[in-house]
Amino acid sequence: MSSQARVTAGLLVIGDEILSGRTKDVNIGAVADFCTDLGIDLTEVRVVSDVEESIVEAVNALRQRYTYVFTTGGIGPTHDDITADAIAKAFGVALPINPQARAMLEARWAQTGTEVNEARLRMARIPEGADLIVNSVSAAPGFRIGNVHVMAGVPVIMRAMLEALAPKLEGGKKVLSKTVKAAVGEGTLGGPLGALQAEYPDVKMGSYPQMGKDRVMTELVLRSSDEARLNEATEKVRAMVLDAHEKAGIAPPDAE
Amino acid sequence: MSSQARVTAGLLVIGDEILSGRTKDVNIGAVADFCTDLGIDLTEVRVVSDVEESIVEAVNALRQRYTYVFTTGGIGPTHDDITADAIAKAFGVALPINPQARAMLEARWAQTGTEVNEARLRMARIPEGADLIVNSVSAAPGFRIGNVHVMAGVPVIMRAMLEALAPKLEGGKKVLSKTVKAAVGEGTLGGPLGALQAEYPDVKMGSYPQMGKDRVMTELVLRSSDEARLNEATEKVRAMVLDAHEKAGIAPPDAE
Repeated sequence: MSSQARVTAGLLVIGDEILSGRTKDVNIGAVADFCTDLGIDLTEVRVVSDVEESIVEAVNALRQRYTYVFTTGGIGPTHDDITADAIAKAFGVALPINPQARAMLEARWAQTGTEVNEARLRMARIPEGADLIVNSVSAAPGFRIGNVHVMAGVPVIMRAMLEALAPKLEGGKKVLSKTVKAAVGEGTLGGPLGALQAEYPDVKMGSYPQMGKDRVMTELVLRSSDEARLNEATEKVRAMVLDAHEKAGIAPPDAE
Repeated sequence: MSSQARVTAGLLVIGDEILSGRTKDVNIGAVADFCTDLGIDLTEVRVVSDVEESIVEAVNALRQRYTYVFTTGGIGPTHDDITADAIAKAFGVALPINPQARAMLEARWAQTGTEVNEARLRMARIPEGADLIVNSVSAAPGFRIGNVHVMAGVPVIMRAMLEALAPKLEGGKKVLSKTVKAAVGEGTLGGPLGALQAEYPDVKMGSYPQMGKDRVMTELVLRSSDEARLNEATEKVRAMVLDAHEKAGIAPPDAE
């Protein structure tokens, strides 16, 4: 894969509730799947609390390193929702009420008979120069400023925002993957797998142990953007795994 | 809470499989719960890929900032397990075979009739000066060096290692929490909640929206290490929530 084709991303998850354990994050996995599907290499994730300087520091670190940055959480109407403030600070811009965001919210509020108040209008504050990200679920928009995409923390809204974003993102070369399952442990496969990895540096080989019900299982995952090389390497890994099972006198599981 | 009583932690999750979306992380939530139970303030989480310089950089950043650092992943027997190498590099120490770790592994292998080979012996490589963390599940130990605690990525093993660690960690003042449920949206509660937060700066108030089946729900979570202040603030939040329901003509849900 040429360095030109490599598109990277960093994800910043914002919220005390994740760090306290009260809420179990599911957005990391959803953003990871989303990036993989688009050929974007999610390279780093950070989770920080609802503290302005922590958010500013993390956003500034990530936006300099990666093609895209995604953030989740902290864009609601309460005092602990400070993501928009922190992003405006990170970019050194003002945070006025955005007329388009306000119109989106007021249209929804008119439908639902919801009162316009100061807390709700916080959700229309958008950093100067940002574009809105449509929220089809609950109207309060996210926004994009520079390479940073600010989304809600509620998973269903976050996923809707990702869908809205997808056509505007440029993916890299799609990475293909193959899985080979083994009924022998990583320790048996480690030596020959390392040798095959050295032979195929352009095919990334990962080994993932699993505790099966009765026995140890291992999944070997091969990834590459070059289909022919991936297939060739996968055949060699399969042969190596079959050989390891034969030596151990164990029937191999079905390979995918 | 005095600054002396504040014990903090950073967590580093290591593994391409999390960033590709192939494996959905559950260790962040488990470490978060563990820290909360011990009165340790988990302040930051990072997820990085199996790249030595990324691990070294993240570990060095986190260990300077927090009382404790925990890492998960990358201590198995295959070529992509490079956490021990990276930690040794971060601390500038050698990575020899540790006799105690080797003895633990060989005892287990003798029981299970497992062959000793080079790949498996990788798991006995422990940075110089580190203490071992016992692995009751599969024998291969984790280790502690300085304030950094290196654990397996397989969730059942990671949790067993946390249990082994618990008696050796010093917690801060236990943070208590109370939850108040509301059947009105965050936008209705945001204004009065912000006023109560200003009145009780020592009680941290968080607001978490939920999409209920039929209507919007909000959970307000109050946290403090001062039980009397927490109870007082919770009563005020409850009264505020009841008032908001009355104004909206909605029956309040049961408060916990």
